[in-house]
Amino acid sequence: MSSLTMTHAPKGLEGVVATTSKICYIDGEQGVLAYRGIDIHELADHSTFEETCYLLWNGALPTKSQLKELHERLAAERKLDPAIIDMLRSLPKGAMPMDVLRTAVSALGLYDPEQKKGDHAANVSKSIRLTSQIAMLVAAYDRLRKGKDVVKPDPSLSHSANFLLMLNGVPPSDTAERALDIALILHADHELNASTFAARVTAATLSDMHSAITSAIGTLKGPLHGGANEAVFHILEDIDSRKADPVEYVRELLAQKKKISGFGHRVYHTEDPRATHLRKMSEDLCKSSGQPKWFEMSRKIEQFIKSEKKLNANVDFYSASTYHVLGINVDLFTPIFAVSRISGWSAHVIEQLDDNRLIRPRADYIGPAYPQHWVPIDKR
Amino acid sequence: MSSLTMTHAPKGLEGVVATTSKICYIDGEQGVLAYRGIDIHELADHSTFEETCYLLWNGALPTKSQLKELHERLAAERKLDPAIIDMLRSLPKGAMPMDVLRTAVSALGLYDPEQKKGDHAANVSKSIRLTSQIAMLVAAYDRLRKGKDVVKPDPSLSHSANFLLMLNGVPPSDTAERALDIALILHADHELNASTFAARVTAATLSDMHSAITSAIGTLKGPLHGGANEAVFHILEDIDSRKADPVEYVRELLAQKKKISGFGHRVYHTEDPRATHLRKMSEDLCKSSGQPKWFEMSRKIEQFIKSEKKLNANVDFYSASTYHVLGINVDLFTPIFAVSRISGWSAHVIEQLDDNRLIRPRADYIGPAYPQHWVPIDKR
Repeated sequence: MSSLTMTHAPKGLEGVVATTSKICYIDGEQGVLAYRGIDIHELADHSTFEETCYLLWNGALPTKSQLKELHERLAAERKLDPAIIDMLRSLPKGAMPMDVLRTAVSALGLYDPEQKKGDHAANVSKSIRLTSQIAMLVAAYDRLRKGKDVVKPDPSLSHSANFLLMLNGVPPSDTAERALDIALILHADHELNASTFAARVTAATLSDMHSAITSAIGTLKGPLHGGANEAVFHILEDIDSRKADPVEYVRELLAQKKKISGFGHRVYHTEDPRATHLRKMSEDLCKSSGQPKWFEMSRKIEQFIKSEKKLNANVDFYSASTYHVLGINVDLFTPIFAVSRISGWSAHVIEQLDDNRLIRPRADYIGPAYPQHWVPIDKR
Repeated sequence: MSSLTMTHAPKGLEGVVATTSKICYIDGEQGVLAYRGIDIHELADHSTFEETCYLLWNGALPTKSQLKELHERLAAERKLDPAIIDMLRSLPKGAMPMDVLRTAVSALGLYDPEQKKGDHAANVSKSIRLTSQIAMLVAAYDRLRKGKDVVKPDPSLSHSANFLLMLNGVPPSDTAERALDIALILHADHELNASTFAARVTAATLSDMHSAITSAIGTLKGPLHGGANEAVFHILEDIDSRKADPVEYVRELLAQKKKISGFGHRVYHTEDPRATHLRKMSEDLCKSSGQPKWFEMSRKIEQFIKSEKKLNANVDFYSASTYHVLGINVDLFTPIFAVSRISGWSAHVIEQLDDNRLIRPRADYIGPAYPQHWVPIDKR
């Protein structure tokens, strides 16, 4: 590859098509998001997270028996090696859940029954296993850090209901189960977002599923990606505790040139279709739980940012108030993003490995002109 | 970003310039590799790994006092939290060192004294800390899995000598120390190789140094990247144990369409300049240690592949025989790559964060045409 045939890409690879993919369709102008061609609105209205996992991994909706089999496999994988629970117990007090999740998923690779297999079938098994285990890790760590016992999973429950059971110690209401399930559907995949891209870069050296998912979790953690929903809630909480006016508060942040998380998206130039659902869900849940203030505050901020900065709310903005009224700790918002996105990450890793090529771009060297020379230390 | 303005990149981003960088200069046609403009040949002949770290992190060779300070900081960081040693002890028997390293580096993020800081100075401190700690982790885990004690570090020794002391329990010979030091210099950086690119993708969400380095380790593990040096030695070992003719053995592998690790490179179309040094080092060390067979076998394979496939040996080919005669276990070859490359990975993370933009490319959707529809399960 001579430097003459190199292509200079925009910073951050913006607008660069890095691969073909059959998983996720996005039309950023029209605000369309579809998994395997099915619009996210139809899936949010009618599907379940388990069915969405099947769709992402297999390319089509499951039949009744296929869905039953997937449910049984997910339920059967609701177990963690006792050594992993011991590791969670041994971590320093105050450890951030995303750091814990990254470490624990990496450790799971050492215990995986198929750790030396990397074929398509083994990777589908690992996807199922990790989907169950990541939900369990998030719930188990939250219990342990609060001095509570890890809750025994219930194989009869859906993935979402079991997660909420293991998090809260009691089975969820139908409303809470469905709300979380819709949130997991909405977050399940989003094409070559940074964490998914990191997973594909890792997988493409023919490393393994656990390495790829560990990369994805570390990447999701950042506030320019999954970490944004936590940042949104910190603002809402601060406004609430100061009894501040939301618009004046945000105006002040803008005056200080601070970035307001939860707005704008590199891909969408209209409303993020996931925000449409999450806004509705936030409104319903905030009102029915007697905490309308979180929705009202959010709505005012949204309208102000829209008029002031011409930016739309993205997936992170209304997930903050939604998760809060579901009783979820703010530092679990990003881990719950991972509880969902493991489905898309693993689908992308499988797709990458089915037709692999090492992902290795180039850099444009702008440092000291070659050749510089080594000089003895006395002469520097 | 309308789809009309998207750029379609070659598969694997081959030849796509994804960023500017002041760290590493490569001329793939001329076979030139230089760090901060200084040719790798000059560095291998005159520099040390510690000096090379300084160069990569700071952009210029250190003065005497700067080099002394860096040595003192590296030596002062030769410590691991007892909880990390306990974790290493608790891992399942037979755990692969790269999986252990990925997990332990992720865990180190939970213990880092600057875990909540992400500014330039904190990231330089983390780079120094991780450089010391990764070497210690590799040595400590190898001792523990062999039922031996972790060796106490010696702050008076160079980075390479201390690593060999902690690995073998005795201080190395001058020859072994210098050989490892040169190998670490040669592996320290290589522009946007897959693991470094993964580290930058992770860092660019404003995640943290430990997340980025964890991604890099998981990516390096793959046999299309760092894992190749282990694959090379497995071939040499198999030839030796079968008393096979190296050329016939490799000819048979080629006939079976098997990939021979250690040959060819996406970036170099002539000899990999690192291979030049490693060939010489392999020859010297194999002969002086009374094991010339590993070099002779390697040389025959190299000549055959060159004439048969027009492929040159790359950095991985002669590092296999070199590390073996240094008494290093084959499954530590890739971890030792990490012991070196942490210097380049962290330099790239620092550079990325000094002028950051989220790395988020697009995919070209080729799945079922939008819109497909959700249909009730009874009708599928």
